[in-house]
Amino acid sequence: MSQIKRIVLDVLKPHEPTNVEVASAIGDIRDVDGVNLSLYEVDQQTENVKITVEGTDVNFDLVLQTIENLGGVVHSVDEIIAGKKIVEEEETLHDRG
Amino acid sequence: MSQIKRIVLDVLKPHEPTNVEVASAIGDIRDVDGVNLSLYEVDQQTENVKITVEGTDVNFDLVLQTIENLGGVVHSVDEIIAGKKIVEEEETLHDRG
Amino acid sequence: MSQIKRIVLDVLKPHEPTNVEVASAIGDIRDVDGVNLSLYEVDQQTENVKITVEGTDVNFDLVLQTIENLGGVVHSVDEIIAGKKIVEEEETLHDRG
Amino acid sequence: MSQIKRIVLDVLKPHEPTNVEVASAIGDIRDVDGVNLSLYEVDQQTENVKITVEGTDVNFDLVLQTIENLGGVVHSVDEIIAGKKIVEEEETLHDRG
Amino acid sequence: MSQIKRIVLDVLKPHEPTNVEVASAIGDIRDVDGVNLSLYEVDQQTENVKITVEGTDVNFDLVLQTIENLGGVVHSVDEIIAGKKIVEEEETLHDRG
Amino acid sequence: MSQIKRIVLDVLKPHEPTNVEVASAIGDIRDVDGVNLSLYEVDQQTENVKITVEGTDVNFDLVLQTIENLGGVVHSVDEIIAGKKIVEEEETLHDRG
Amino acid sequence: MSQIKRIVLDVLKPHEPTNVEVASAIGDIRDVDGVNLSLYEVDQQTENVKITVEGTDVNFDLVLQTIENLGGVVHSVDEIIAGKKIVEEEETLHDRG
Repeated sequence: MSQIKRIVLDVLKPHEPTNVEVASAIGDIRDVDGVNLSLYEVDQQTENVKITVEGTDVNFDLVLQTIENLGGVVHSVDEIIAGKKIVEEEETLHDRG
Repeated sequence: MSQIKRIVLDVLKPHEPTNVEVASAIGDIRDVDGVNLSLYEVDQQTENVKITVEGTDVNFDLVLQTIENLGGVVHSVDEIIAGKKIVEEEETLHDRG
Repeated sequence: MSQIKRIVLDVLKPHEPTNVEVASAIGDIRDVDGVNLSLYEVDQQTENVKITVEGTDVNFDLVLQTIENLGGVVHSVDEIIAGKKIVEEEETLHDRG
Repeated sequence: MSQIKRIVLDVLKPHEPTNVEVASAIGDIRDVDGVNLSLYEVDQQTENVKITVEGTDVNFDLVLQTIENLGGVVHSVDEIIAGKKIVEEEETLHDRG
Repeated sequence: MSQIKRIVLDVLKPHEPTNVEVASAIGDIRDVDGVNLSLYEVDQQTENVKITVEGTDVNFDLVLQTIENLGGVVHSVDEIIAGKKIVEEEETLHDRG
Repeated sequence: MSQIKRIVLDVLKPHEPTNVEVASAIGDIRDVDGVNLSLYEVDQQTENVKITVEGTDVNFDLVLQTIENLGGVVHSVDEIIAGKKIVEEEETLHDRG
Repeated sequence: MSQIKRIVLDVLKPHEPTNVEVASAIGDIRDVDGVNLSLYEVDQQTENVKITVEGTDVNFDLVLQTIENLGGVVHSVDEIIAGKKIVEEEETLHDRG
């Protein structure tokens, strides 16, 4: 089974627990090397955040479960990198066309 | 026969199997070093993803077959890099003109 | 508990104490390696600044308390990086779409 | 005679042979180090691709002949780099003006 | 007291002393490693310049005093970097949103 | 006499000799290290190209003469770099303003 | 007296002497390491060029005098870098705002 190197998630979450607590909890997951939590929309009860998780072999289900345990809902899985090395998505001529 | 170093595919797929499963399956193919699966459109039954596969000698047919076995349809092959080294496509003066 | 590597804050503050004083005070916090304070709006009594704090293990509560002690109000926590390494947020195909 | 280091071609081709076959064939040419084939328009019978060929001394005529043998037509030669080192085209103040 | 590594100032100044003289005078201040003076608006009597000062421990008051002694008025302090290392301000998802 | 390191020319030329021949001829000039020929407009009889020539000490007159011998007309000399090191033109605050 | 590392000038000049001659003359000035002369507007009798001069300690008056001796008029001094190291002007949050 090939290793997951990066996951980018679009997540809706309540204001509590705070984003610092959510980021810390994901950073504590085994085989996660680092996590970036970026806010992009704030509503009265909820906020939308983009969560980028990197590691040598990220356990997708554990990340999902951690987010859900803290009240978050994953709207979409925007990017996944799998395999032995990191492959970045880059704009092709077709994308620009 | 010259080696394939990178393939970029525009793929339509059902929601199941998940993008994590598809990326993992492609990452498991022999001679694939890494794969990036990026979502760009979600519909009720299907989603459109851009898949970038890199390796020292990627077997195009195996990649195609893996995607089709998981229910995906390749809409277009947007970029191919072949040979001994990676040559990037760059904007020319003509493209900008 | 995973380490906080970077915090980006949107802050409303009075003109006094000055931005140099606020930046210096945050830079003095234990385990803070550096701070960037960037102005983006000036009003008669107040100004809006974006504060980026980096360190090996930034104490979020101490940063918050320092800002509040100097009369600032944190409007939003725009980015948090936690874990063993720095993970940057990058534009995905979905963001550009 | 100075060496050709890079050629960028705008090519119209039929759907068959496939882009993977065309890229492979160009990658097989003597003194070609790598080739990038990027799609930018698809029609019913034909497609437009941008082909970037790099090598220590690319044989322009062999590249042309290979493309024509596979049914392609070169619409324009958008960039040529010749000499002992690679010189990139960069936007001048005049271009931006 | 944490060290000031960079200050960016928006300054209104008379045409005389010249920008070369002002830049030289700031470059002469103790612990200043370098200064960039960039013009962005010219009026009949005055001009607006953006002054970036870097050093291992820039004395903000000395910089201010030097500018005022030469007839300049600091309109705003647009950026301050303090601490042991340089932290750049970067666009967050929230800024782009 | 200071050395010329780079020349950027806007050139109008007939379709024949081809751009590959023109680039090769310039690449053959003594002290030229490399040349980039980029197409930006094609008309019935003529085409407009941007030619970038780099070397340790480029002989401007020889480059000009070579282009004219091949039927080209230099419309403008868009950039010249002279001296012991390459100095790039960069956008200033005034340019952006 | 702090050293001048870079000067960027907006200059109006007659077509003769040519830009190659002007760039060469500036490149010949003592302590100038390199010069970039970029054209941005051409009129019947005159042209506007942006001249970037770099060195370990550029003599501003000599550069000015050289340009004036060749018939040029300096419209504005768009950027000056002084001190022991090169400090680049960078877009702040305030500039983007």
